[in-house]
Amino acid sequence: MWFYPYDFLSLYPFYLHQQEEGMNNNQEKITETLSEITELLSCKDSYQGLFHQHKEGEPIPSANELLKIVNLLRSIIFPGYYGKSSICCTTLKYHTGVNLEKVYDLLTKQIYAGICFGSHLNHEIGDEKCQVCGEKEKGNARTICNQFIKKLPYIRQILATDVLAAYNGDPAATSYAEIIACYPAIKAITNYRIAHELYEMGVPLIPRMITEMAHSETGIDIHPAAKIGQAFSIDHGTGVVIGATSIIGKHVTLYQGVTLGALSFPLDNEGNPIKGIERHPILEDNVICYSNSTILGRVTIGQDAIIGGNIWITGDVAPGAKIVQPKANKNL
Amino acid sequence: MWFYPYDFLSLYPFYLHQQEEGMNNNQEKITETLSEITELLSCKDSYQGLFHQHKEGEPIPSANELLKIVNLLRSIIFPGYYGKSSICCTTLKYHTGVNLEKVYDLLTKQIYAGICFGSHLNHEIGDEKCQVCGEKEKGNARTICNQFIKKLPYIRQILATDVLAAYNGDPAATSYAEIIACYPAIKAITNYRIAHELYEMGVPLIPRMITEMAHSETGIDIHPAAKIGQAFSIDHGTGVVIGATSIIGKHVTLYQGVTLGALSFPLDNEGNPIKGIERHPILEDNVICYSNSTILGRVTIGQDAIIGGNIWITGDVAPGAKIVQPKANKNL
Amino acid sequence: MWFYPYDFLSLYPFYLHQQEEGMNNNQEKITETLSEITELLSCKDSYQGLFHQHKEGEPIPSANELLKIVNLLRSIIFPGYYGKSSICCTTLKYHTGVNLEKVYDLLTKQIYAGICFGSHLNHEIGDEKCQVCGEKEKGNARTICNQFIKKLPYIRQILATDVLAAYNGDPAATSYAEIIACYPAIKAITNYRIAHELYEMGVPLIPRMITEMAHSETGIDIHPAAKIGQAFSIDHGTGVVIGATSIIGKHVTLYQGVTLGALSFPLDNEGNPIKGIERHPILEDNVICYSNSTILGRVTIGQDAIIGGNIWITGDVAPGAKIVQPKANKNL
Amino acid sequence: MWFYPYDFLSLYPFYLHQQEEGMNNNQEKITETLSEITELLSCKDSYQGLFHQHKEGEPIPSANELLKIVNLLRSIIFPGYYGKSSICCTTLKYHTGVNLEKVYDLLTKQIYAGICFGSHLNHEIGDEKCQVCGEKEKGNARTICNQFIKKLPYIRQILATDVLAAYNGDPAATSYAEIIACYPAIKAITNYRIAHELYEMGVPLIPRMITEMAHSETGIDIHPAAKIGQAFSIDHGTGVVIGATSIIGKHVTLYQGVTLGALSFPLDNEGNPIKGIERHPILEDNVICYSNSTILGRVTIGQDAIIGGNIWITGDVAPGAKIVQPKANKNL
Amino acid sequence: MWFYPYDFLSLYPFYLHQQEEGMNNNQEKITETLSEITELLSCKDSYQGLFHQHKEGEPIPSANELLKIVNLLRSIIFPGYYGKSSICCTTLKYHTGVNLEKVYDLLTKQIYAGICFGSHLNHEIGDEKCQVCGEKEKGNARTICNQFIKKLPYIRQILATDVLAAYNGDPAATSYAEIIACYPAIKAITNYRIAHELYEMGVPLIPRMITEMAHSETGIDIHPAAKIGQAFSIDHGTGVVIGATSIIGKHVTLYQGVTLGALSFPLDNEGNPIKGIERHPILEDNVICYSNSTILGRVTIGQDAIIGGNIWITGDVAPGAKIVQPKANKNL
Amino acid sequence: MWFYPYDFLSLYPFYLHQQEEGMNNNQEKITETLSEITELLSCKDSYQGLFHQHKEGEPIPSANELLKIVNLLRSIIFPGYYGKSSICCTTLKYHTGVNLEKVYDLLTKQIYAGICFGSHLNHEIGDEKCQVCGEKEKGNARTICNQFIKKLPYIRQILATDVLAAYNGDPAATSYAEIIACYPAIKAITNYRIAHELYEMGVPLIPRMITEMAHSETGIDIHPAAKIGQAFSIDHGTGVVIGATSIIGKHVTLYQGVTLGALSFPLDNEGNPIKGIERHPILEDNVICYSNSTILGRVTIGQDAIIGGNIWITGDVAPGAKIVQPKANKNL
Repeated sequence: MWFYPYDFLSLYPFYLHQQEEGMNNNQEKITETLSEITELLSCKDSYQGLFHQHKEGEPIPSANELLKIVNLLRSIIFPGYYGKSSICCTTLKYHTGVNLEKVYDLLTKQIYAGICFGSHLNHEIGDEKCQVCGEKEKGNARTICNQFIKKLPYIRQILATDVLAAYNGDPAATSYAEIIACYPAIKAITNYRIAHELYEMGVPLIPRMITEMAHSETGIDIHPAAKIGQAFSIDHGTGVVIGATSIIGKHVTLYQGVTLGALSFPLDNEGNPIKGIERHPILEDNVICYSNSTILGRVTIGQDAIIGGNIWITGDVAPGAKIVQPKANKNL
Repeated sequence: MWFYPYDFLSLYPFYLHQQEEGMNNNQEKITETLSEITELLSCKDSYQGLFHQHKEGEPIPSANELLKIVNLLRSIIFPGYYGKSSICCTTLKYHTGVNLEKVYDLLTKQIYAGICFGSHLNHEIGDEKCQVCGEKEKGNARTICNQFIKKLPYIRQILATDVLAAYNGDPAATSYAEIIACYPAIKAITNYRIAHELYEMGVPLIPRMITEMAHSETGIDIHPAAKIGQAFSIDHGTGVVIGATSIIGKHVTLYQGVTLGALSFPLDNEGNPIKGIERHPILEDNVICYSNSTILGRVTIGQDAIIGGNIWITGDVAPGAKIVQPKANKNL
Repeated sequence: MWFYPYDFLSLYPFYLHQQEEGMNNNQEKITETLSEITELLSCKDSYQGLFHQHKEGEPIPSANELLKIVNLLRSIIFPGYYGKSSICCTTLKYHTGVNLEKVYDLLTKQIYAGICFGSHLNHEIGDEKCQVCGEKEKGNARTICNQFIKKLPYIRQILATDVLAAYNGDPAATSYAEIIACYPAIKAITNYRIAHELYEMGVPLIPRMITEMAHSETGIDIHPAAKIGQAFSIDHGTGVVIGATSIIGKHVTLYQGVTLGALSFPLDNEGNPIKGIERHPILEDNVICYSNSTILGRVTIGQDAIIGGNIWITGDVAPGAKIVQPKANKNL
Repeated sequence: MWFYPYDFLSLYPFYLHQQEEGMNNNQEKITETLSEITELLSCKDSYQGLFHQHKEGEPIPSANELLKIVNLLRSIIFPGYYGKSSICCTTLKYHTGVNLEKVYDLLTKQIYAGICFGSHLNHEIGDEKCQVCGEKEKGNARTICNQFIKKLPYIRQILATDVLAAYNGDPAATSYAEIIACYPAIKAITNYRIAHELYEMGVPLIPRMITEMAHSETGIDIHPAAKIGQAFSIDHGTGVVIGATSIIGKHVTLYQGVTLGALSFPLDNEGNPIKGIERHPILEDNVICYSNSTILGRVTIGQDAIIGGNIWITGDVAPGAKIVQPKANKNL
Repeated sequence: MWFYPYDFLSLYPFYLHQQEEGMNNNQEKITETLSEITELLSCKDSYQGLFHQHKEGEPIPSANELLKIVNLLRSIIFPGYYGKSSICCTTLKYHTGVNLEKVYDLLTKQIYAGICFGSHLNHEIGDEKCQVCGEKEKGNARTICNQFIKKLPYIRQILATDVLAAYNGDPAATSYAEIIACYPAIKAITNYRIAHELYEMGVPLIPRMITEMAHSETGIDIHPAAKIGQAFSIDHGTGVVIGATSIIGKHVTLYQGVTLGALSFPLDNEGNPIKGIERHPILEDNVICYSNSTILGRVTIGQDAIIGGNIWITGDVAPGAKIVQPKANKNL
Repeated sequence: MWFYPYDFLSLYPFYLHQQEEGMNNNQEKITETLSEITELLSCKDSYQGLFHQHKEGEPIPSANELLKIVNLLRSIIFPGYYGKSSICCTTLKYHTGVNLEKVYDLLTKQIYAGICFGSHLNHEIGDEKCQVCGEKEKGNARTICNQFIKKLPYIRQILATDVLAAYNGDPAATSYAEIIACYPAIKAITNYRIAHELYEMGVPLIPRMITEMAHSETGIDIHPAAKIGQAFSIDHGTGVVIGATSIIGKHVTLYQGVTLGALSFPLDNEGNPIKGIERHPILEDNVICYSNSTILGRVTIGQDAIIGGNIWITGDVAPGAKIVQPKANKNL
């Protein structure tokens, strides 16, 4: 069932040879090694499938640029929290205008980079893309970015409900401000809500890179394709996973380590997993999942249900149900 | 029970309008969008509750500055590990002196920023703070920072016991040095012990920002208000959560994914959670909690108890008890 | 059984004194505090065991330098993904040559730093190392680095199988490119495979620092000493722990939060844990472990076995077995 | 007449001693030297007159900050030339608003730093400044900065005449744009016009630092106290010196290496130069000075006069006069 | 004869008003000033002729980018001197290849930026450039950059003759290496030779920016249009000016402060200087000019002539002549 | 008499070919050009004499490192002016200690780099240097750096006399502080006094690089080999040149553009200039030279002499003499 394109052990007699001789060969010149290994690593057999060649003049999807974009968006949405400058009512408009323009410039390039990246996958390496296609893709990137910027007021509003939900759900929170400034979940949800809008407009790769940035920063992994209602809160959050086809209602709360995943997936005739099937849970309004619980497959957790911690769930849960782990044993 | 201040869907007819027309509107000028959205995002209705206006001349709590401060403190506490320069016995004093002075300068500003941040929450936006109050708050920040610096020898000593505990508890550790240089738990506990002292002196916001920095770096989330005894160790650590009112004795060991959390919390008459109630577990001396176990509520885990992994505990555990998950089933 | 070298509370009467007087002492000069605390922190009793003195002229193991090295290696192994420049077939060789040379320069220094760090642990602080030893260690560092570079083609090939496994295992993955560009597991496994080769050649400290960098970035903690076969995949990954003596076969898949840990370990006559004992699980080919399951001790999970989520396993599992958590209770 | 406060040769017997023994002392420990020299350099006799102690909480005049300020002002005055972002008519206002606010924040601090610096000179080191004075000085800095910002439209207009003069005076100039983007004289004159306004409002030190920045960048040294009319141009400019009490009319052109200096200056009773006397030339409207000519003393160069290159002038020149160097000799 | 487009004093009654009221107005709000001045500086009358609007998607000529390009070219031409990495014969080719590719990428953008900048000057602000023109200009930029790279071997060779000339002409020079590493003239001549090739290929603005960078760094101002033969040397160099239509033969030596300038220039019917006329000196082979001498107008300094320092020359000098300043007077 | 090693025009038929075909060849692939030119620039004939190969493990003389060193030395000598931190009497010692240690680390490496650079000049490229020599050279670098640090108190004292001289000589100076903070001459003289001590101890290249840094920053070019007495002042300074064998007494003042140079120099039998001959002027105590005067050759300017501006002097000047340029002519 498993298939690999090359048997790498037989491909590198040179490497095996080294293994035998070990470290004795002390005097060997490093410059020889550098030339030899440079040749090996530059031959086509070696880099096949691992080399991303981008066309001249096309931008590369860049984590650094996306980080700048996300920080600009955070400072637009939550003014005074993330930007460096001091802002007051009078000057807020200037800052918003400048930052929006920067977002437009940077994000248009990244969307275009994502489109190029996506279209490469359907071409042979080295194909020339006709100039007309290139210009059309650039135009699309500009249109998408324009549309995205129009959604910012909406994104701000739904994030306001998430902030409020976090405040209401955590007795340790002393103010909205503390939540916006400190809570990792707000960062992760902000990245998700931005990425989701881009995903919905069909931008390849970029949405996933944006949610992975939050994953790395907070340990919260939300797929940009997931659908999540307003007033969503995650407490602590490390280890939370929300799969691509998950659907989450309003006022849902997750604790750290909760997984909304897929249990198994059907294979096609060639034994490969069929892509795009709905395979993650549906959580209806007001559901609470305690820490480290795992919910797998296209199951439905009914409205107001409470899932205790450390549980493994692969079936539906009725609305209003409260389920917990069976009692632990008392000897190791 | 849930209440949101605005119905955001009705507020943005403009947005809905866009949704209908879709992406066809290709020629639209981006500059028009920028102006329009800048106006929308700068109107008071839109940013209410999400805008932090700080007063002229007041510093802003800054994650970058706190990162510098924490790195300076790490290099003072563990000389030769974190600082760039080579240090020997003779010159240690010079480096310590310079670094302490930098800590004083930077931390005083951040403490003052935290105090200002805290006091804003009790004022209307736009209130003028009298100059006398400002000077008094600055004086407080200096006093607190002075007191904090006096606690550094103590902080170093208790961290020494944590390093020793990590060494004794991990057969893979080859030296104290490896633990100080590599183990994420030491970073998280260092940040916690620093933040806890600041928390005890009443500094708002800053302690939480310091522990969240460690949370992001290590996946270990310790609330600065928690009380933790000497010789505390956490192995691997990703996903550990220690809530605000937890109390942990001496020589306690936690593994990755352990949660000391709150189960549920009483609401006040208006349906909001009552803040400040003791709602997290007490772990007595020498307790060990294996990975991914979840302990919720004001329960007591008695001295020398051992909690197996992946367990959900919501009641007291007797001293010396060893409890594990019930046996797993053999079919999926 | 527990032993601490100093009773820190008695050592700091100064500190206790402060506690009593509290914050009243408003006028105290900060410069006095700075001098006093500088003295205290520079005295030998205070920093014993926490101070790393390196010898003049020796490099220090540096997380920054290792980050540069890992990024260079990533851009050599996956050209066009991580490097900034645009690369095509024609110029790939130039870039590979320059990057390999940089790796050699930087990594030789870090290997030498690791060797110095390791050898310090067996000496009294202040010992002079004879110049002959120093030159011999430098030579060893050069030889090891030379050998390491020769293994790069092999490392690339085995990583190619890991990428393919991730693609085959995740219906949400749209291309190899997306996996290489976004998936945190590939970053963690790349760091592990690099670190493992250095570990096998006996380099102290550096391999652990490299895997801890990935731990911090991805929440995946793989000990460099673990042995892991080809086509290894981790999905999402936050909270995964793979202990030092783990052995993992081919085509194994782990989900987030899976622990391959040690249950307990024998003590020597002085009550200290015996180091170096095989104490982590063996996973045979094609095993799948779902999220948050904990497998502890030198147990064997047989070929093709499937471990459900949130399970605590401390015994062997037969080949082909599928085990899940017992059914949850329905009331809280 | 010359008086030095200490005979430094006798003060350092230690140093002389070293000179005698020379470099033979090969084994000497560097750490001893470091301690010894640190002591010597930290004793009051050694640093007297060379040590600038600033008070706690006061900003320091900073070349880096002034550089940022000057770049911001250049990008406000000549939009689209110096700033990084792309600016169009629609967004110009946002950028101007944000940049003006930054200028206000940064420049207020530097003006306050200059005032503190100036007031130190009249105090003994270590004097406590009363808090009331401090607040008053801060208020002054804010008022001055406010006034300065109001002068920016005027500064832009007079610089427009300077750009036009440069264009009209240089056949090699192809556009205004080339002059603004490339010509060093425009940079030097911009810095001068900014610094002159600050000088006129009584700010100490800062104006001089701003003109010295241009001096270093362009080789053109204009004292901020000089008075210079509109449509002023300098070609090439390296080596131009314009003294503090110079007065320059409209439409004056200087070439590289021209000095408007002081010849000699009267001494007071104690043999020190009397400060503040008018001692530099007056150039009336439309004067041209060719390269490397030196004009010294309070002389007047009449309207429309042309001064040839490499001349030394210490007397008045009549309006309309043209003077050149006497004919050169033909043998070396 | 002089004409200015606006009488700026009458345009700003607001400013004059301020002047009268002076600094008394202490309480004025800075935010009002910011709004007011932002409005004034954003109105069209104010920025006319001083605002560079570039079209969307076009790069801006950037001093930072040109600095990177010049540093890359220096490290290609003089390998091992300017680049950071250690280079040996074996790896020289890799470094050269990578650096040439970077030069191509960066310089193509800057050449295109220069072309756009040049073409703007012939359009009204706001004109739309047709996409076809844009693509044609980009193609031109690529072609020019390709041609420029082909000239690099030639540029290296002629610079080799300049290095040799500097070595032969300066008794203080101890090696070629010292000259390449330290002598400012080599930096200025390198920039000139690079800029001259770009100038010859018709690139607007960029060549001048490159020579101005050297002007700022070294005080040597060579116009990129000047023609200069091989084995050219400048000693010390501060204040040297070489005008646009100068022609310099082989083996010519200039000392610091030498000007090759224009004396005066004919005006057209409207009183503006006629552009493009040959107005700078011709220096034949082997001429030496000592420090601070000024040679003006289209005069010819014959082969082997020696010009003494501080002389003003406005006529031809015969081949082989030696001319010096007349004897100085002995009283001030 | 002039000899060049290669006729570069004949060496590059390729280049000439291009010239003929011009820019028509629009479709040519840039990758071909890159390969072709990379080959040409990497062949030995092309880079001969322009390639600096340093040995593995040897540091490279680095302008960046020297800049850091000079800034550290400035902040040690003039505390509170150049360093960023606030320093008071109490903490001065800590800062001085830390900065001295940094200087020792960085400068030892640069001195060693200079020694390696110097010794290369006497070897064929590719020679292996024996390890013993390498260690001896490193030891020398350490010894020299140790000696240099011992001279810092002396360097500070003599610079104090220079500051005082500048204050006494300039009526525009309002305080010592202004001179230390702003006057370019103090920067240039500081670099010279540092470089001169290193030059006297026989360090190759590094002293010249240090004075060239000041040359670029200030336009003042002082050769590190020149001998200059105490209380030396330079006003404005752009264009000042002080040759290698100049000798300057006490209390000497130079104005901008003054040259102390060599007139001509004797050739050896092969027509090359004889190196090391005393060929620059001697200025006795209290001499003043006004702007742009040129003094060439081993002449003596007697005590208290005053040299007027723009004069060319190639003979001795008697003590107390005052000489000026002959009177100018009145027509152009």
